[in-house]
Amino acid sequence: MDPVLDLSRLLSPRSVAIVGASSNLDSISGRPLKLLRRLGFRGALYPVNPGRREIGGLPCWPDVASLPETPDVVLVGVRADLVEAVVDQCVARGVLFAVIFSSGFAESDDPGSQRRLVEKAAAGGMRLLGPNCQGLVNLKDRVPLSFSASLDTDALRDGSVAYVSQSGAFGFASYAMAADQGVGFRYVVTTGNQADLDVLDFARHFVTDPEVRLLVLYLEGLNRGEAFFDLLDEASRRDLPVAILKAGRSATAREAAKSHTAALTGDRAAWAAVMAQHRVIAIDDADDIVDMGRVFSLGTVPAGNRVAVLTTSGGGGILMADQCDDQGLAVPLFSEALQARLAPYLPAFGSTRNPVDMTAQVINDPEGFPACLDAVLSSDEADMVVVVLSMITGQAGRKMAEDLARAAERARKPLVCCWMINEEQGGAFLDYLRHRIPLFGSPKRCARALGALHRWSTRSRQPRCALPPAVPALDAFPDRLTEYDAKRLLDLHGVPVTRERLCQTLEEALTAAEEIGYPVALKIMSPDILHKTEARIVALRLKDEEELKNAYGRLLERAALYDERAEIVGVLVQEMVEGGMECMIGMSRDPLFGPMIAVGLGGIYVEVLKDLSLRHAPLTEEMAREMIGELKGYPLLRGVRGEGGRDIAALAEAVAAVSRMACAEPDLLELDVNPLFVLPEGRGVVAADALVVRRQKK
Amino acid sequence: MDPVLDLSRLLSPRSVAIVGASSNLDSISGRPLKLLRRLGFRGALYPVNPGRREIGGLPCWPDVASLPETPDVVLVGVRADLVEAVVDQCVARGVLFAVIFSSGFAESDDPGSQRRLVEKAAAGGMRLLGPNCQGLVNLKDRVPLSFSASLDTDALRDGSVAYVSQSGAFGFASYAMAADQGVGFRYVVTTGNQADLDVLDFARHFVTDPEVRLLVLYLEGLNRGEAFFDLLDEASRRDLPVAILKAGRSATAREAAKSHTAALTGDRAAWAAVMAQHRVIAIDDADDIVDMGRVFSLGTVPAGNRVAVLTTSGGGGILMADQCDDQGLAVPLFSEALQARLAPYLPAFGSTRNPVDMTAQVINDPEGFPACLDAVLSSDEADMVVVVLSMITGQAGRKMAEDLARAAERARKPLVCCWMINEEQGGAFLDYLRHRIPLFGSPKRCARALGALHRWSTRSRQPRCALPPAVPALDAFPDRLTEYDAKRLLDLHGVPVTRERLCQTLEEALTAAEEIGYPVALKIMSPDILHKTEARIVALRLKDEEELKNAYGRLLERAALYDERAEIVGVLVQEMVEGGMECMIGMSRDPLFGPMIAVGLGGIYVEVLKDLSLRHAPLTEEMAREMIGELKGYPLLRGVRGEGGRDIAALAEAVAAVSRMACAEPDLLELDVNPLFVLPEGRGVVAADALVVRRQKK
Repeated sequence: MDPVLDLSRLLSPRSVAIVGASSNLDSISGRPLKLLRRLGFRGALYPVNPGRREIGGLPCWPDVASLPETPDVVLVGVRADLVEAVVDQCVARGVLFAVIFSSGFAESDDPGSQRRLVEKAAAGGMRLLGPNCQGLVNLKDRVPLSFSASLDTDALRDGSVAYVSQSGAFGFASYAMAADQGVGFRYVVTTGNQADLDVLDFARHFVTDPEVRLLVLYLEGLNRGEAFFDLLDEASRRDLPVAILKAGRSATAREAAKSHTAALTGDRAAWAAVMAQHRVIAIDDADDIVDMGRVFSLGTVPAGNRVAVLTTSGGGGILMADQCDDQGLAVPLFSEALQARLAPYLPAFGSTRNPVDMTAQVINDPEGFPACLDAVLSSDEADMVVVVLSMITGQAGRKMAEDLARAAERARKPLVCCWMINEEQGGAFLDYLRHRIPLFGSPKRCARALGALHRWSTRSRQPRCALPPAVPALDAFPDRLTEYDAKRLLDLHGVPVTRERLCQTLEEALTAAEEIGYPVALKIMSPDILHKTEARIVALRLKDEEELKNAYGRLLERAALYDERAEIVGVLVQEMVEGGMECMIGMSRDPLFGPMIAVGLGGIYVEVLKDLSLRHAPLTEEMAREMIGELKGYPLLRGVRGEGGRDIAALAEAVAAVSRMACAEPDLLELDVNPLFVLPEGRGVVAADALVVRRQKK
Repeated sequence: MDPVLDLSRLLSPRSVAIVGASSNLDSISGRPLKLLRRLGFRGALYPVNPGRREIGGLPCWPDVASLPETPDVVLVGVRADLVEAVVDQCVARGVLFAVIFSSGFAESDDPGSQRRLVEKAAAGGMRLLGPNCQGLVNLKDRVPLSFSASLDTDALRDGSVAYVSQSGAFGFASYAMAADQGVGFRYVVTTGNQADLDVLDFARHFVTDPEVRLLVLYLEGLNRGEAFFDLLDEASRRDLPVAILKAGRSATAREAAKSHTAALTGDRAAWAAVMAQHRVIAIDDADDIVDMGRVFSLGTVPAGNRVAVLTTSGGGGILMADQCDDQGLAVPLFSEALQARLAPYLPAFGSTRNPVDMTAQVINDPEGFPACLDAVLSSDEADMVVVVLSMITGQAGRKMAEDLARAAERARKPLVCCWMINEEQGGAFLDYLRHRIPLFGSPKRCARALGALHRWSTRSRQPRCALPPAVPALDAFPDRLTEYDAKRLLDLHGVPVTRERLCQTLEEALTAAEEIGYPVALKIMSPDILHKTEARIVALRLKDEEELKNAYGRLLERAALYDERAEIVGVLVQEMVEGGMECMIGMSRDPLFGPMIAVGLGGIYVEVLKDLSLRHAPLTEEMAREMIGELKGYPLLRGVRGEGGRDIAALAEAVAAVSRMACAEPDLLELDVNPLFVLPEGRGVVAADALVVRRQKK
């Protein structure tokens, strides 16, 4: 594991120089200084611009070399072709960190100069943020190192969300919208081209901050898979929720991602699998940053999935119940006792059942709403409380907002509000409430956020498993493996394979068949013919000597017809496996995450229904079992229509064995075990065919 | 088809009386008068309250009887127990419409009084809206007949959305939020308990208004299935998009719906099927009303699925491309020619490919953004244009907003904007823009709205088909049908069944088997034993006389053992069908929609994978084919792994025949044809087992 970088001098510098500072403080190159002063930065500030004597009342310096002290951080906003010289100066002065806003590096036609920046900084012990980024803000200490207009306000609040975004524009724009909605941030960092410091460096730092309650990452690509896993492990150990927006999934978007950040963009399915495996909250929209920020800032999770819905709108309550249902949340009928506690505050045409329809009449009794809130908050019949309000206006609206804020302070379970009202009638209440309680306008977003909170709380921590290292064996195999080779490799790694013998003559084949026992299968082995069915060089269920003799010559003839130059390494005589269910185990090597393991039901299930479960290796048998349980066709393995169950434990063992093999064999690029027959419970599994693609030897 | 009600005097009355008017114009009972005056209602206004001489400067009348003229509409806001007397007075005066706001009727413990209201109104020729509703607003003519605070504003705008909601509170709250977001409404009507006038009455009226571009319905339940279909047919004929939010899907929510509106709540799957079948835009959230309102108000649909994305944020562009991909929209790489048109306005680190990353530098050239917009709007390489902006502020932001508004006026294809910015920096631009262009903050919602617009435009109109009436035959069958009866019924309705004979003796069975040809199946027929497999009274693949003789007695014995009192009506000798793929056709009778037809692959596909396609009857063969094409397992029918295709045409024919049968046989409650064997192409289908549940004869 890499050591965690000390970024404290970047996040809380004692002194900051701004190279390329403009005297127009509202321009992009003037704004960093404006923001530092507006937010009350208490360290030393050094504008650097050879054309000015002072900027904004501060003395201006011609270059970094002439500064009266070495600044902790230098902000660089000059034209791309001038950046290298600035970096030279910074290195010469022993600057710790440079934040490079300038565009025109790896994202355009000039990656060379970006590499030179990195090399020079590295040689001088300086770390770079950017280029092509919008910098960062440390809201806890009110330190903006950015030109983003989103920080040009008196309304900044700190909070418990740490947000690291590869995209500068999207990062600060989505931060600004979320802050408007009441989400409190502790840090926002944009990494741009991340020539040196990347999203993971910052994320790793923020994970150690006990005040951070949610880590949000916007990623377009990554190139440090192991560091990513380390981060997720550490977050998991600390029980810190991590939400990731992985952009660049579609083919078009991937195209754009390359030109935008010149980073690797992983495969969509692999990302989804890895995120699910590591308890990551997968998000895909700016709204999700708002919504996850709202509920995870609570710092409390529900003990179960039961939601109490209090509403002034019968329709709103029904809609919320629908949405909860979609999220796997229950809106249970309340007990007689709890209903009796609510009843005194409701008119006859209300409902105490849950959703609790208080009706708009609840505003007529000042004790009514607080009493209803108290009843459900203190009840053990609900793990979360949602208040759905409609057009409650004027004094009544103000009173409800205050009642809610008071209840939120005391609540020991998640309490959220969905208030459907327009700006003119409700804006004041909403503004008052949004920093005091997770506040929604959409029932669906409200329920989705609670659903995410609940699901996160129920997912178990899964740090990567440390498995006993397997012994690599692939080196001893030829460059191109036949099915026979592939099965020997599987066998060496503990995956049961068919009993079989590679034969060179008909006599050998007859002897082998006798030993194995009829019926047998016969297959021509050639590294040049991967698709044996297509070449028709497989004969199944040969039930005696006679049939074997007939098939032997016929198959060899077909092989020659199919490809006369194909090298034939032998004829495989193989046992026939009866009574098994066709499954498959696959493995591929993701450029970022390494070996990915797939398991699925075989045959039509994989081909037509794409029913596969995917995880990255290594996998324990327990994890493999979980994968199998997620298959849509899982009931078939467990047994349906009176048929008995299959040996799921043995299948899980085989999946785990393949995953260990994938980790032990770095040259193993792809593997298909298909079919793998899963026999009735207690009788194991057996691989009947396998295909291995290995890295070519040099 | 019911005649369309003339609601014009309700929507645009010449005179309105307000019974229960309060002199406190900000109270709920005072607000109707306040709103009518605030919106400039030009007809006569008659506050009615025996305790007042004048209200708000208008003379106040003691009761309806004493009014100087008969008002077109009477608004009723008095306590529930006083409503009946008001209705009596209205009827006596010959009032056309009463809008009853009062709660405390069918939604509470007193449905009796609601029925009396309806009876009295009907006898007097008066129509009722409500009770327990919030009334309506006709924004076109600025007529509010409501107490909703959402109308208490000077900022009302009219537009092209007609919205009818069963829920008063949700209806006006969601209207108000959508109006805040720039959606223009023409009518908002809430129907509450809909004791008389219901959502369909208003919807049917609005469909005929050529200025309406989107009809939005919020429904909890309906009890007029035929009228609903009529409405959808008419909307389809007029090419008017209909969006429906059907609330009350979950078990909990259904519970609540009953107590809320005392209406039937349909089944979730049936609703989804019916909406899909009738080109309805299914929505499920307040946000959807906003988003559909935004894009369907454009009144223009995209000619294809290609989206041009113009952005100032590389990240925002990537995210939008991802979201488009999820919606089945393409973000195609632009041609060299189009890229050349864009290039002059972009810096080297931008991208002309699509997404077009203009970068924030586009603001430096006043011609840049309009030129880029013009290039994509006039290009035939894009069917829609999305502009994704981030934190563009100050003068530059104002300029971009104006450029966009100008482009929107001229655009002949959908042009929308997703502007990610906070209120303080961007509020003014957003306020300016939201009435001029569909304006989003979330890339996901933006792409989803465009996806909905595109999908709607590609769905064909499907008015209900008029099929030749089938001849009912069920009356001739016994009360409880055996498999043999069920298959005879199917046969009469044109569904091919197995060749078979019902026999009473072993001799008859042997003769029958000889004629049918071995192998045969043998099944005991008893109306008392529906689950033959469980009772083990089926023998398959009997290959000669010997086997048939053995099975005959054994099965009869088992039947007696399983249920000694079971009536045995005979022994069925049936052909064995080989080489067919197991499918199933099912039918159930929805209380609202009538017969629903399901088709799916049989066996494990239905049981494990729930792979079914559902529609309401009747169905043409073309529609049945569509259903079959939607099955996940459809490739299996078409043929995979070198296997030939199945007779899909014959399957579709059978589905259509079952649908005609379902319409012709009102007493047919449930039907399972399972398995129906689908033979290789050209060889037809054959029903091998069937189960019929019929309504019991009186």
